[in-house]
Amino acid sequence: MTSGGVYTSTGVFVCFEGGEGSGKSTQSRLLRTWLEERGHDVVLTFEPGDTPVGRELRRIVLSPETGVLADRTEVLLYAADKAEHVETLVQPALDRGAVVVTDRYVDSTLAYQGAGRALAVDEVEQVARWATHDLRPHLSVVLDLEPAAGLGRFEGRDRIEGESLEFHQRVRAAFLAMAAADPEHYLVLDARGTVDDLAGAVRSRLEPLLAQAAR
Amino acid sequence: MTSGGVYTSTGVFVCFEGGEGSGKSTQSRLLRTWLEERGHDVVLTFEPGDTPVGRELRRIVLSPETGVLADRTEVLLYAADKAEHVETLVQPALDRGAVVVTDRYVDSTLAYQGAGRALAVDEVEQVARWATHDLRPHLSVVLDLEPAAGLGRFEGRDRIEGESLEFHQRVRAAFLAMAAADPEHYLVLDARGTVDDLAGAVRSRLEPLLAQAAR
Repeated sequence: MTSGGVYTSTGVFVCFEGGEGSGKSTQSRLLRTWLEERGHDVVLTFEPGDTPVGRELRRIVLSPETGVLADRTEVLLYAADKAEHVETLVQPALDRGAVVVTDRYVDSTLAYQGAGRALAVDEVEQVARWATHDLRPHLSVVLDLEPAAGLGRFEGRDRIEGESLEFHQRVRAAFLAMAAADPEHYLVLDARGTVDDLAGAVRSRLEPLLAQAAR
Repeated sequence: MTSGGVYTSTGVFVCFEGGEGSGKSTQSRLLRTWLEERGHDVVLTFEPGDTPVGRELRRIVLSPETGVLADRTEVLLYAADKAEHVETLVQPALDRGAVVVTDRYVDSTLAYQGAGRALAVDEVEQVARWATHDLRPHLSVVLDLEPAAGLGRFEGRDRIEGESLEFHQRVRAAFLAMAAADPEHYLVLDARGTVDDLAGAVRSRLEPLLAQAAR
């Protein structure tokens, strides 16, 4: 893994990562509400697909009609989505001092395309870091869940969720390894916790970052 | 520029490069006919857009409706097209011993996205080389034309052709520089020559390569 990376001095960049059905979108929305109640300018977003071109790319990479894509094609399509997302949405929001909360970011590419598809993860990382100007979240929250539990809710819904259990187990291990390597920027939570407990843990970890950004 | 690259030991890989209106598609078709008459298995193809996912990406990158894309988004979309093109079409054809003739390849990305858009060309090249497994044409034919002449026929037709004259002049200079740096793999022709003269020059240069491949 590349060390270093770019952390903005304005705004706060928070990311939720984890497998399918781990509760990322629920927690993202709860965090937005809490932040807005405290008066923050909040941008809630997601990958892939939260820009005009990203919506078309999301359709291509997730639709079962697309069929088999070459591994590198898939990596590059996700990277294109990220490039557009960071340059047109995430970075401008951080520049004006907003709190950006994203449901998935670079780690998902590394976990799904790198670990999941057995491509060289350092090559996948190089492409994804270039796409995003190496912009990193101040905090990545990994909602950790045994794959079988989450997949039961969604199996076969799209191209990624239809992958094997072993694929999703490699993805989970990749998220945990990234978090273990950089505890300063990661919070790992057991996704089986109650929605309120998880939201509380995220808020506690985020409060000092918000205080720092306000100074 | 990266030196080295991968040249297949089976099949012959020929590429036409050059600006808008330089006659690439005419020459590609003439070459295919000539090769087929000599009994070769020929695959005539083009970038971007000659795969199912490539057709969707071509529409995105060339349609005026797409509007402004981040520079890196554009590079990554072209790279995704190339990845799919090489892995599903070009490489399998070369593996079975075919002559593959493509209208545009990696050099177009380097010229248009690197030189044209003022991105770091070595970074653009790294992405494009990774996408294509660094597969190189045995021969790249550059049909060289003063930009104004070619653009007069197409101006404003799509996002790329609608760029400024200076953009297209940088693109031309980039093609010529790549050819000058690797004369063994390039043939530069003045695109103002007659169709027959140009076709003859391509054939003459190609004949020893075809003889070599047949051994």
